[in-house]
Amino acid sequence: MKHLAGKPHQLPGNRQSLQDYQARHFSYRMEGAVAVVSLNRPERKNPLTFDSYAELRDLFRNLAYASDVGAVVLTGEGGNFCSGGDVHEIIGPLTELDMPGLLAFTRMTGDVIKAMRACPQPVVAAIDGICAGAGALLALGSDMRLGTARAKTAFLFSRVGLAGCDMGACAMLPRMIGQGRATELLMTGRAMAGEEAERWGFFNRLCAPEELLAESLKLARELAGGPTFAHGMTKKMLHQEWNMGVDEAIEAEAQAQAICMATNDFHRAYHAFVAKQKPVFEGD
Amino acid sequence: MKHLAGKPHQLPGNRQSLQDYQARHFSYRMEGAVAVVSLNRPERKNPLTFDSYAELRDLFRNLAYASDVGAVVLTGEGGNFCSGGDVHEIIGPLTELDMPGLLAFTRMTGDVIKAMRACPQPVVAAIDGICAGAGALLALGSDMRLGTARAKTAFLFSRVGLAGCDMGACAMLPRMIGQGRATELLMTGRAMAGEEAERWGFFNRLCAPEELLAESLKLARELAGGPTFAHGMTKKMLHQEWNMGVDEAIEAEAQAQAICMATNDFHRAYHAFVAKQKPVFEGD
Amino acid sequence: MKHLAGKPHQLPGNRQSLQDYQARHFSYRMEGAVAVVSLNRPERKNPLTFDSYAELRDLFRNLAYASDVGAVVLTGEGGNFCSGGDVHEIIGPLTELDMPGLLAFTRMTGDVIKAMRACPQPVVAAIDGICAGAGALLALGSDMRLGTARAKTAFLFSRVGLAGCDMGACAMLPRMIGQGRATELLMTGRAMAGEEAERWGFFNRLCAPEELLAESLKLARELAGGPTFAHGMTKKMLHQEWNMGVDEAIEAEAQAQAICMATNDFHRAYHAFVAKQKPVFEGD
Repeated sequence: MKHLAGKPHQLPGNRQSLQDYQARHFSYRMEGAVAVVSLNRPERKNPLTFDSYAELRDLFRNLAYASDVGAVVLTGEGGNFCSGGDVHEIIGPLTELDMPGLLAFTRMTGDVIKAMRACPQPVVAAIDGICAGAGALLALGSDMRLGTARAKTAFLFSRVGLAGCDMGACAMLPRMIGQGRATELLMTGRAMAGEEAERWGFFNRLCAPEELLAESLKLARELAGGPTFAHGMTKKMLHQEWNMGVDEAIEAEAQAQAICMATNDFHRAYHAFVAKQKPVFEGD
Repeated sequence: MKHLAGKPHQLPGNRQSLQDYQARHFSYRMEGAVAVVSLNRPERKNPLTFDSYAELRDLFRNLAYASDVGAVVLTGEGGNFCSGGDVHEIIGPLTELDMPGLLAFTRMTGDVIKAMRACPQPVVAAIDGICAGAGALLALGSDMRLGTARAKTAFLFSRVGLAGCDMGACAMLPRMIGQGRATELLMTGRAMAGEEAERWGFFNRLCAPEELLAESLKLARELAGGPTFAHGMTKKMLHQEWNMGVDEAIEAEAQAQAICMATNDFHRAYHAFVAKQKPVFEGD
Repeated sequence: MKHLAGKPHQLPGNRQSLQDYQARHFSYRMEGAVAVVSLNRPERKNPLTFDSYAELRDLFRNLAYASDVGAVVLTGEGGNFCSGGDVHEIIGPLTELDMPGLLAFTRMTGDVIKAMRACPQPVVAAIDGICAGAGALLALGSDMRLGTARAKTAFLFSRVGLAGCDMGACAMLPRMIGQGRATELLMTGRAMAGEEAERWGFFNRLCAPEELLAESLKLARELAGGPTFAHGMTKKMLHQEWNMGVDEAIEAEAQAQAICMATNDFHRAYHAFVAKQKPVFEGD
């Protein structure tokens, strides 16, 4: 497999850098190979607006081609994650829209989640304080979630007269915490406490609030320092196999893993093992 | 959207009342907008019979058109939920049936669950004591389950020589408590204790036996007082997205939520918020 | 149904015995109707090799026709379950293979899991110590898992530069422990501790190390002494309904359970109940 593993030809035109990306509707910075996306209107608990939805969608779409980003941390400033769609900036205008306008909005918000699921980088959400409505969906659409005991996650669509089926919640939440618990949270809109979230598998673990961001960065940095091509394949297959049969999934994985066995990172790991060294992965 | 949200035309012929429904094979009463269905042969721990299966199927089918019922509580009398198909009234006769007869029976019992999943009202099961066989399926087919520590839920089909695949159990139980736990319960037929049921996500929470019905009614009343059209959409989409891919589910939710944004309840919630009032939902 | 339940005609040529099977690459013995498969290279923590993969695949395929085996216990010797693919015997040679060779390997390993899922016997994994890589997949592909507090289960593919999508892991692990926890384990390769495994539903329960095998045998013996035809149907339908809609699953179960109602074991159970005796199942 040397001819394949020797990486002579990367696809031209398919790479771009997000190192110096200047975000307009949230804060964005790089910590090494980790992109840190932080919702930054703390005085209103970091609500989403039409503009920030659109920019999040575009950023996550562009991450598919950003080979200099190995992982993403998604968080919010001022002790809260995200309060969801702003009542004055989102809900009010929605009451004035006609049906094509409404569908354009719900598709735009859904596209944020589609883009988060489609980018190859693992997305680690760091969740403290309020995590509500569309904010809870940003958390749910992430690959992993670190939270705090005081975090309150609420799918509160029913409180504004809407259904719990928003941005994929009825598909994703049951697979995360179980169908019965998901049904209750989506219908009642009640907040899931931090300790419940950990116990039910929504949070991967609980952190002290003052250590939440550092712990999330540490996890993201470890992932970004790993075999990122393979991580992207893991993420792709978790998505791809969502509604496959077991036998079809096993064949799909046979193909996907064979591809990964043709990468340099697999060879690097083997040679490092033989040399009793720690492998250094390069993502190809 | 005023022309849509102004509700001029309800579908003629599509509404019926279940306020005064007289049940024959269980007890039925309304508490406000909540229908309380109670299995009422406590001396035998509330077994099911051919007649009660059929009447449950028909009742849940009719609920689809009963705009005066906002939620359902399903329970049993005398400290037990349901002991399942009666050995003398069900199992015995089944041993005499030919294959078309057997299939007519298994389809009828499955139709009860299909009808429970298809009606728009959330169904809250209140589960104390014995919850066994087909009774465990009535619990599993409900949208939420409140239980007691002493409740014993057993999918005991294997104890009578049958398979765990009954009325949808092999599809629903793994999504509720996980594939490994479900496999054990369905194959061995062992009882799941109340505390296990809560820990595994089968029960939404545990209640004291003397408060179980009141707590279940309270939850059902809250749901019935909410945006019931939207609740029905949440329930429909949880069902509909069961085996969709994530991207397809997100598009399906974009459409479903756009529909909900064209309802009066969404407008009511917004105007109540602006006026700093609590919204009063009317289900349209 | 007497003509069907009277079992006059078993399918000729479709039965074989595995009572005296002589395994070459692991140990195999019968304890009554329970086949005990034990990986037996304890000095290396029971690694898998090309040969043992192939023999496991063939054994589980043959179990489909072995009516004298009612259940399987899968375990490892010397206090460990399985360390996965051996670095020297598997990983090294893989780095020399071309793409068809790699795919032939990943398909062979996947075929082990397919065969474990397809055989009608319940497979109980008894897991102590190291349970890593492909070993973790053998555990995941089993129907139930008894473990110990000191067991460490690690899907450590990312540590060797590979993806977590191996032998069906991205399909099966999320359904066992939830999507969020599975994503973390598959991407980071970190070990799941024994108590986590129990809390998350990976282990059905924890046993003391010295009682692990006996407890696993006891569970397998109970299953083998039950209605094995029905158990096989439960296992088949858990597999079959993996990505069906709920309504389709209910119809599929109506058919599957009607078949089981035409077996002798169903009749035996009824007659034993009427006679106030314990039923003796015979698997037909």
